[in-house]
Amino acid sequence: VTKRLTIALDAMGGDLAPTMVVEGAALAVNRFPHVDFLFFGDEERLAPLVAAHPHLSKTSTIYHADDVVTADDKPSVALRSRRQSSMRLAIDAVKDKGANAVVSAGNTGALMAISKVVLKTLEGIDRPAIASSFPTVRGSTCMLDLGANVQCTAENLVQFAVMGEVFARTVLGVDKPTIGLLNIGVEELKGHYEVREAAAILRASDLPIEFYGFIEGDDIPAGTVDVVVTDGFSGNISIKTMEGSVRFFADFMRNALTSSIFARIGAVLARGAIARMRARLDPRHHNGAILMGLNGIVVKSHGGTDALGFDHAIEVAVGMVDNDFFAKMSQDFERLQADQAHSAAAAVS
Amino acid sequence: VTKRLTIALDAMGGDLAPTMVVEGAALAVNRFPHVDFLFFGDEERLAPLVAAHPHLSKTSTIYHADDVVTADDKPSVALRSRRQSSMRLAIDAVKDKGANAVVSAGNTGALMAISKVVLKTLEGIDRPAIASSFPTVRGSTCMLDLGANVQCTAENLVQFAVMGEVFARTVLGVDKPTIGLLNIGVEELKGHYEVREAAAILRASDLPIEFYGFIEGDDIPAGTVDVVVTDGFSGNISIKTMEGSVRFFADFMRNALTSSIFARIGAVLARGAIARMRARLDPRHHNGAILMGLNGIVVKSHGGTDALGFDHAIEVAVGMVDNDFFAKMSQDFERLQADQAHSAAAAVS
Repeated sequence: VTKRLTIALDAMGGDLAPTMVVEGAALAVNRFPHVDFLFFGDEERLAPLVAAHPHLSKTSTIYHADDVVTADDKPSVALRSRRQSSMRLAIDAVKDKGANAVVSAGNTGALMAISKVVLKTLEGIDRPAIASSFPTVRGSTCMLDLGANVQCTAENLVQFAVMGEVFARTVLGVDKPTIGLLNIGVEELKGHYEVREAAAILRASDLPIEFYGFIEGDDIPAGTVDVVVTDGFSGNISIKTMEGSVRFFADFMRNALTSSIFARIGAVLARGAIARMRARLDPRHHNGAILMGLNGIVVKSHGGTDALGFDHAIEVAVGMVDNDFFAKMSQDFERLQADQAHSAAAAVS
Repeated sequence: VTKRLTIALDAMGGDLAPTMVVEGAALAVNRFPHVDFLFFGDEERLAPLVAAHPHLSKTSTIYHADDVVTADDKPSVALRSRRQSSMRLAIDAVKDKGANAVVSAGNTGALMAISKVVLKTLEGIDRPAIASSFPTVRGSTCMLDLGANVQCTAENLVQFAVMGEVFARTVLGVDKPTIGLLNIGVEELKGHYEVREAAAILRASDLPIEFYGFIEGDDIPAGTVDVVVTDGFSGNISIKTMEGSVRFFADFMRNALTSSIFARIGAVLARGAIARMRARLDPRHHNGAILMGLNGIVVKSHGGTDALGFDHAIEVAVGMVDNDFFAKMSQDFERLQADQAHSAAAAVS
């Protein structure tokens, strides 16, 4: 018997909200019948949308929120003056134990700022990070930080490694996840101080972590490691470069396959294979980034996604709750702290 | 009448050297009959290779070099102890005015270190950068720095912008090239101090530069701007991520198009289109990065490339000489220096 769980939804976040949020939850409830939903947003708009889906209606509660966080709100402003927003009330629901996780397609900076203040960071974590998983040549890889921290210390990077390892093990189901530090070369002397120092700490550590060493940009899509650790500046740039490259390649292929009558016939014959390829690379199927290192599960959906994409962001949240990610990460961080004094000493020697 | 020009080749640099260097030059000499080549390397091995190509033989001179820079040599070691290496002697040839440019597929760090000491940086440039151009949705984009400078000041980034602009205008033939600063968001407050300050200087500048503003990772393959400016850490990671993504996508497509009998027949019918697409994305056709900001033209080929790739690296060098890149950049830097006091004052206000 699967335990029932509750997901809070910021119903007003995202370009196509609230419709795509409700439609996304309606898709998710068919796949995850053990989930109850709490919708936070404009009750008048939400009630008929939810009522249109009898299955969803049965397991959902609507909480009215007067206000919304806009895409332009600065994080500090959203934090101070959007206390009655759908985003804030949805995060509050996790703190007040009504919900096991929250999913929002709203303003990322605001979501991080409010989550940090409401939920606080986990013991042992200085800075939360944004993490996401995506398809690679070898399967799936998880990468963090994707933009929460423009500059990172060696200690931040080490903490990201531990968080990413737990995620890959418990949620992605990788037996002994390998961890790579993103750098501009694989030799020990490459890169800046922080990345070299983080490598030294991870090498010297007694943590049960499979530290692969440095990796380079092309190792990300190659799937050389299960977890890619980097600062939020490089991480954000590389994941967006990868997304843009896939779009570029897809455009290119579309043009190539319509460029002649033979190519068009060929494309029709190969359409099953091309459709499967397109489905695997569809960004909606990888939607749902995790704000990791908080005292609670917060999932960020792409703002521009549709119901199918939002359904996948809900799936990420469900996977983290079902796999007890949170308790396992807390355990690992207790171990990290016990280990840290030792590691630091070893790194210096 | 095209003026004759001379290219010095480090014949021993690269995994497949010296054969691929000579074969690459043999391809290039057919396309660029106005070029004379100076080969630096093991004369005994080079003489029969060059003699096998009568056209090349006529326009080539072989200079014996006793030593080689290895892939593992640290830049400082290569600089001090490889004074009789093929790489060093080829760079010396540019300084001594025997050659208009040098091309090497050897150790990048060593090439940069030796070039800086032998050729010196251009007046007005604090740090040389590595630049390259590649295909995008809209055509071709040039990006720098790709790895020479792990950390960059705002002034370094501004200098990269000027160098990239001249390159896009004179060598890529773009009329008014647009310049984008790579960041993790397009809002003025995003990113670290250096990138925000560089944007402020470029916005306030009187330089005749089309400054687009901040761009994000997905704008690189989209070709949103003609010149992408970033530090060497992010630049190296994002260009390698892009290269890896293209390989990933190509693998994926190959698997898709062999997954069923229909797909296979389709692929045969579409093979002309697929071949053209493959050719456009073939990394060998974009081989040849430029060490920009030096008192001389230095082109770095991928170490693992073959004759076709090396031919393209030679083409990059020829294009820069033919288009008088060097003189035009010097002019622009004089203008930048005149402008800099004014810009700095405007940026502060």
